[in-house]
Amino acid sequence: MKVIVLRLGHRAGRDPRISTHCALVARAFGADGMIYSGEHDSDFEDSVNNIVKRWGGPFELRHEKNWRKTITSWKGASVHLTIYGMPVQEKIEGIRKARNLLIIIGGQKVPAEVYHRVDHNISVTGQPHSEVAALAVFMHELFEGKEPKRRYENAKIRVVPQEAGKKTVEKS
Amino acid sequence: MKVIVLRLGHRAGRDPRISTHCALVARAFGADGMIYSGEHDSDFEDSVNNIVKRWGGPFELRHEKNWRKTITSWKGASVHLTIYGMPVQEKIEGIRKARNLLIIIGGQKVPAEVYHRVDHNISVTGQPHSEVAALAVFMHELFEGKEPKRRYENAKIRVVPQEAGKKTVEKS
Repeated sequence: MKVIVLRLGHRAGRDPRISTHCALVARAFGADGMIYSGEHDSDFEDSVNNIVKRWGGPFELRHEKNWRKTITSWKGASVHLTIYGMPVQEKIEGIRKARNLLIIIGGQKVPAEVYHRVDHNISVTGQPHSEVAALAVFMHELFEGKEPKRRYENAKIRVVPQEAGKKTVEKS
Repeated sequence: MKVIVLRLGHRAGRDPRISTHCALVARAFGADGMIYSGEHDSDFEDSVNNIVKRWGGPFELRHEKNWRKTITSWKGASVHLTIYGMPVQEKIEGIRKARNLLIIIGGQKVPAEVYHRVDHNISVTGQPHSEVAALAVFMHELFEGKEPKRRYENAKIRVVPQEAGKKTVEKS
């Protein structure tokens, strides 16, 4: 299953930290890449690409001005994460059968047409919280919690889990 | 089970948005409250309290300068969420048996002693991403994904899940 996250409406001045969290969550929970619309932002891209270079990939981040084209040209199923959608617990089994999946997460204001262009509007908890958290829990459910088994290519560093303290293995 | 989240090292200038996401995640996934150390921040508190007033509670947010006291005086088990810890998948079953749980999430630099003062250092994925996401997935596992069944007291608004579009019920 190929999984791409589409982050709508990035604002370079205000959002780099939240968008960086979204991109790192996408990578850590098993997405192949993230596309973001809104303002182009080299600093945001650099901070994500530096993590990918050090911790491994593949993970591709790219900007796309025309988010509508990204949705309509997508070959596969699409999910929009929104507080107003159906509970992830009810729908995830069906969504797991998709061949490719586009996961859309909003910025401040999501145009109404997004709700109607996607295959599923999905909510994580039905309460207001965070697109970072919604993406993480949705992907955790999508891949049934198998994150510790993921392997990353060309990683220069990885963590060796410890009961207390820090241990990493690095290669140059 | 009483669950409190302890957010370390809040910086009023830089962190309000991430800390707000953390507090809202704590509330939406079933914590009773959040304690934060670092700088006191009324704007951050107001934005969280406004959500609690509208979407229901109980959920208490308070500042505590002395995070060490919060950890040592805690009556119950404690978990520190860190990339360096043991996989949540391996440890969650034991942690679910705790009567009360303090969940600690870091700011930029977590003092080494935190790793040794807690009962469990737990990692979500073992990859770098986001304390917001780590908290959400940890709590989602802790309560076995039962978020849609939670009821909030004195809520003025709640969402009615929809396949497409937005529906809420409000009462004044």
